[in-house]
Amino acid sequence: MLTTQFQRIGIVCRQDTPQAFEPLAKIVHTLLNEGLQVYLDESNRPELLDLPQLEQCEFASKADLGKLCHLVMVLGGDGTFLSVARKIAPFNVPIIGVNVGRLGFLTQVPLETLQADLLNMLTGKYLPEDLILLESQVLRDGQIVKQSLALNDVVFSRGGLGQMIEFEVFINRQFVYTQRSDGLIVSTPTGSTAYSLAAGGPILQSSMHALALVPICPQSMTNRPIVISDTCEIEVVITKGMDARVHFDGQSVLDLQKLDRISIRRYRNTLRVLHPADYNYYKTLRTKLHWGEQLV
Amino acid sequence: MLTTQFQRIGIVCRQDTPQAFEPLAKIVHTLLNEGLQVYLDESNRPELLDLPQLEQCEFASKADLGKLCHLVMVLGGDGTFLSVARKIAPFNVPIIGVNVGRLGFLTQVPLETLQADLLNMLTGKYLPEDLILLESQVLRDGQIVKQSLALNDVVFSRGGLGQMIEFEVFINRQFVYTQRSDGLIVSTPTGSTAYSLAAGGPILQSSMHALALVPICPQSMTNRPIVISDTCEIEVVITKGMDARVHFDGQSVLDLQKLDRISIRRYRNTLRVLHPADYNYYKTLRTKLHWGEQLV
Amino acid sequence: MLTTQFQRIGIVCRQDTPQAFEPLAKIVHTLLNEGLQVYLDESNRPELLDLPQLEQCEFASKADLGKLCHLVMVLGGDGTFLSVARKIAPFNVPIIGVNVGRLGFLTQVPLETLQADLLNMLTGKYLPEDLILLESQVLRDGQIVKQSLALNDVVFSRGGLGQMIEFEVFINRQFVYTQRSDGLIVSTPTGSTAYSLAAGGPILQSSMHALALVPICPQSMTNRPIVISDTCEIEVVITKGMDARVHFDGQSVLDLQKLDRISIRRYRNTLRVLHPADYNYYKTLRTKLHWGEQLV
Amino acid sequence: MLTTQFQRIGIVCRQDTPQAFEPLAKIVHTLLNEGLQVYLDESNRPELLDLPQLEQCEFASKADLGKLCHLVMVLGGDGTFLSVARKIAPFNVPIIGVNVGRLGFLTQVPLETLQADLLNMLTGKYLPEDLILLESQVLRDGQIVKQSLALNDVVFSRGGLGQMIEFEVFINRQFVYTQRSDGLIVSTPTGSTAYSLAAGGPILQSSMHALALVPICPQSMTNRPIVISDTCEIEVVITKGMDARVHFDGQSVLDLQKLDRISIRRYRNTLRVLHPADYNYYKTLRTKLHWGEQLV
Repeated sequence: MLTTQFQRIGIVCRQDTPQAFEPLAKIVHTLLNEGLQVYLDESNRPELLDLPQLEQCEFASKADLGKLCHLVMVLGGDGTFLSVARKIAPFNVPIIGVNVGRLGFLTQVPLETLQADLLNMLTGKYLPEDLILLESQVLRDGQIVKQSLALNDVVFSRGGLGQMIEFEVFINRQFVYTQRSDGLIVSTPTGSTAYSLAAGGPILQSSMHALALVPICPQSMTNRPIVISDTCEIEVVITKGMDARVHFDGQSVLDLQKLDRISIRRYRNTLRVLHPADYNYYKTLRTKLHWGEQLV
Repeated sequence: MLTTQFQRIGIVCRQDTPQAFEPLAKIVHTLLNEGLQVYLDESNRPELLDLPQLEQCEFASKADLGKLCHLVMVLGGDGTFLSVARKIAPFNVPIIGVNVGRLGFLTQVPLETLQADLLNMLTGKYLPEDLILLESQVLRDGQIVKQSLALNDVVFSRGGLGQMIEFEVFINRQFVYTQRSDGLIVSTPTGSTAYSLAAGGPILQSSMHALALVPICPQSMTNRPIVISDTCEIEVVITKGMDARVHFDGQSVLDLQKLDRISIRRYRNTLRVLHPADYNYYKTLRTKLHWGEQLV
Repeated sequence: MLTTQFQRIGIVCRQDTPQAFEPLAKIVHTLLNEGLQVYLDESNRPELLDLPQLEQCEFASKADLGKLCHLVMVLGGDGTFLSVARKIAPFNVPIIGVNVGRLGFLTQVPLETLQADLLNMLTGKYLPEDLILLESQVLRDGQIVKQSLALNDVVFSRGGLGQMIEFEVFINRQFVYTQRSDGLIVSTPTGSTAYSLAAGGPILQSSMHALALVPICPQSMTNRPIVISDTCEIEVVITKGMDARVHFDGQSVLDLQKLDRISIRRYRNTLRVLHPADYNYYKTLRTKLHWGEQLV
Repeated sequence: MLTTQFQRIGIVCRQDTPQAFEPLAKIVHTLLNEGLQVYLDESNRPELLDLPQLEQCEFASKADLGKLCHLVMVLGGDGTFLSVARKIAPFNVPIIGVNVGRLGFLTQVPLETLQADLLNMLTGKYLPEDLILLESQVLRDGQIVKQSLALNDVVFSRGGLGQMIEFEVFINRQFVYTQRSDGLIVSTPTGSTAYSLAAGGPILQSSMHALALVPICPQSMTNRPIVISDTCEIEVVITKGMDARVHFDGQSVLDLQKLDRISIRRYRNTLRVLHPADYNYYKTLRTKLHWGEQLV
C-alpha cells in the first residue's frame, strides 16, 4: 500500500480521446490496487462504461472532484486543463496535467510514463508550482451580470463585424489610456505563453506575481504591452463597439455593451500544479519555442 | 466659364455630416456658375432638400455617378472614400477626396480650402496617383458565392467565438503555408497604412505594384509579413474555424465555411486619385505617424 | 526657517547648460535663506564661479554628495540623472530630478516651477518611489575585471564589426538559451521605457520588482522578451563575438572577451526618487508615448 | 562530351573547409572529362595543391573568374556566396551556390547531390532567378570616398559607443524622415530573409523589384519598415553619431562622419542565380522558418 497524502484522486479525461482510455484504465487499476479512492468526471461516464473497475470508482462533476479529492489529474491538452483548473481553484486542491497529444505548457506528464511518474509524485517526488488566477466581474447598470475565473487570460475582443472596439483602462482607479484596437489581453504568467504571445506580449516567468496588458492590433502604434504587479486591480470600460466581447481562457464568453465595466483582480487562491521532479521551466520554453541549445 | 476636361462632376457626401452641407452648397453653386454639370448621390437627397440649386442638379446612385461623370468628389473620411471607390472603379473615373473630420490618408483636400483647391484641380493643377485595387471571389462547392473589389484590403478573420482559425495560402498555385491565427490581411499599398499597420505590417509606398500578406496574431512566431508582386494570384482555403469571415475594406463581409476557396488578384483597373499639386506622400506619413522632422 | 528633514542639499547640474544657471542661483539663494546647507558638484565649480553665494556653498564629488547630504537634486536630463544615481545609490540618499530640456521620465520637476515645487517637497509634500538598481560583475579567468551599478539597464551588444554576437544566458544557475543577436538588454522597470522599449521590450510598471531580458535583433524569430522576478540572478557567458561589449546605463562600457561571465542581480539598496505630490505615472506614459486620452 | 552553353566553369570554395575538397576534386574531374575548362579561385590555390588535376585547371582572382567564365560555382555558405556575387556582378555571369554546412537561402545545391545536379543544370535543367543588387556611394565634402555593391543590404549602424545615431533619409530627393536609432537597413529581396528579418523587417518575395527600409531599434515607436520600388534612389545623411558606420552585406565597412551623404540605388545588372529544376522558393522559406505544412 502506497504511503501518500493524496488518498482520494480525481481524474478528468478530455472527451472523445480514445487513445487515453487504455492508459487511464491502467492507472485506475494501479491506484485502486494501492488502496486509493478514485473519482471520475461525470462527463466521462458514457465513454468509460467498459472500464473494468467501474463499480469501484465514483463519479462526480468537475467542481465536486475539487471538493472531494486530495488531487485532481487531467488527461488531455492545455484546453482541458484550463477548464478543470477554473472549476477546482476554489477548493485549493493540487492538479497534475497528463499530456495527450502535442506537448503542452500545462500538461507536463507524458502519457507514456504516466504510471511511473504518478507513483513517484504521489510519494512526494514532485515540483510544486503555484499559479495565479484572475477573478473577473462584469458590471452593467450597477449589476453584476457575469463572474468568472481565468488561469490564462481575460480577453476583450471584437466579434465578426470587422470594426475595432474602443475602451478605457484603469489600474487601481487611475486612468491609463483609451485604446482603439481589436482588443486587449489581460494575461497571467501562465497565459503569457498562450494567446498573449501570439499578440506580441512578453513571456512572464511562470512564478511571477505579475500581469501583462497586451493590446491586440492597436490603432496607435505606440501602444505597447505593460507588465504590472498582480496586486493591481484593472478596470476596463467599453466605450464603443457593437460586438465587443469578453472571453475567459478562450472558453467562456459574454457579449458586452457600451459602458459595461469589467474589473479584473488576482483570485484569492493560487492553483498548485505538481510537476515531475525533473521538470525544468526553461527547457519547456526552449522545446516549445525552438530556442537554441547550450554550446559551451 | 472654366476650361476643364471634367464637365460632369459627381459629388458624394458622408451621411449625417451637417458641417459639410454649407461648403457643399457653396461648391455646387460655384460649379454650376462655371457652367459645369453637377450630379449628387441619391443617398444624400433627403439631407439636401434645402440646397438652393437643387433643381439644377441631378441625382444618381454611386455606381451611376461613376458611369455618368468625368470626376467624382467625395466629402467625408477614409471610410466614405473606400465605399465610393469600390463602386466607381469599374468606370475608370478619377476621384478627389475632401476631408471632413480628421486628416485622412485618402481624403487630402481640406474642407477649408475646397473652393480654391478644386478650381485649381479642375484646370489641371493636380498630382494624379493610380492606386491598385483587389478583386476577390469566394468559391464554395465550385460556385462563386461572393465577388467584391477592395481598395484597402481583403481580411480573413475569426468572429466572436474566440478561437483561432486555420487556412492554407497559395501564391500562383504554389503552396506557401498553413497558418493558425486570428486571421490574415491581404493589403494593397493603400491599405498598408490602415489595418495592416496595426497588425504589424510594413508600409508599402502608395504607388508600389505590390501586395502584403500580414498575419493577425499568428500562433507560429516565425510567421512574418510577406510582400509579393501585384501580378501574383493569391488563394486562401479555409481548413478550420466555425466563425471564419472575409471582409472587404472592412465594409462588406461574408461568413466562410470549411473548404471555401477565396481567390484574390489585382483588379484590371486602377483608381486614379487627384491630389492637390503640392501633395507630398512622405509629409502625409510624417504627419499621421508623428515621425521626426528634418534637422539639417 | 523651513522645517525639513533635508538639512543638507546636494545639487548637480548638467555641464554646459547655461540656461540652468539662473534658476540654480535662485534656488541656492532660497535654500541658504531658509537656513539649509548647500553642497555643489565639484564638476560644476568652473561654471559657477560667478554664483553670488559661492562662498556659502561647499563643493564635493558626486559620490561625496551622496555621503554628505540628506537629499540630492539633479538639474539636467535623464542622462545626468542616471550618472548621479549610480554614484549616490550606495548612500541611500533620496534624489529629485529637475528637468532641463525635453520632458524626461526621470526628471519630473519642471525648471519653471522649481522654487515652489522644491519648497513643497522639502516640507514633505512629495510622492516617494523606490527604484531598483542592478549590480553587475564581469568575471574573466576567475577575476572580477569590472563592477558597476545600473539604474536603467545592462546591455550586451556588438561593436562596429557588423557581426552578431553569441552568448548563453542562465537564470539562477539554470540554462535558459543560447542566443545569436546584436545583443541583449537586461532592463529594470526604470529602463523599460528607455532603450529596451526601442528594442521591442514591454513596459514594466515603475514599481515592479521585475527585470526584463530583451533580445536585440535576435537571429531566431522565436526569441522574445522575458520578464522575471528581481530576486533572480542572471548570468551571461560570451561564446562568440570579437567586439562584444557590455554597457551600464549606456554610460560606462567594457570590452568583453570570449568566455567572460557577467553576473547581474538586484542591488541591495533601492533609489528613492521624490516626485511632486501631483505626479502620475500613467500620465507621464501617455504624454511621452502619445497615448489616447480619456473619452467618457 | 556534354553539350552545354557553359564551357568555362569558375569554382570558388570557402577557405578552411576541408570537407568540400573531395567533392570539389570529383566535380573538377567530371567537368574536365566532359571537355569543359575549369578555373579555380586563386585564394584556394594553397589548399588545392594536392588536387590531381591541378595542371589542367587555371587559377584567377574572383573578379577574373567573372570575366573569364560562363558560369561561376560557389561552394560554401551564404557568406561566401555574397562575397563572390559582389565581385562577379559586373560581368553578367550566372552563379550556382553549393551548400557546405547549414542550408542557406543562397546556396541551394546540396553537396551530396552536386554531381548529378550540376550535370543537369549544365544541360539546361535549371530554374534561373534574377536578383537585384544595390550600388552605393559615400560622399564626403563632395568627394566619393567609397563605392560598393551589395546583394543583401546596405546597413547604417552605430559602433561600440552605445549611443544611438541620427540621420535623415531622402527618397528620390524627397525628405522622408529624421531617425534616431541603432541604425537603418536598406535591404534587397535577397537580404529580406537575412539581417533585415532579425530587425523586424518584412519578407520580400525574392523576385520583387522592391527595397525595404528597416529601422534598427528606432527611438520613435511609430517608425516602421517601408517598402519602396527598386527604381527609387535613397539618400542618407548622417547628422549625429561619432561612431556611425556603413556595412555592405555585413562584409565591407566604412566609418562615417557627420554630414556624409550615402546614396543607394539599384545596380544596373542583376545577378542570375541558377537553381536546381525542382527549386521552390516557398518551400525554402517554410524549411528555414519552420512554417506549418499543408494539411488539406
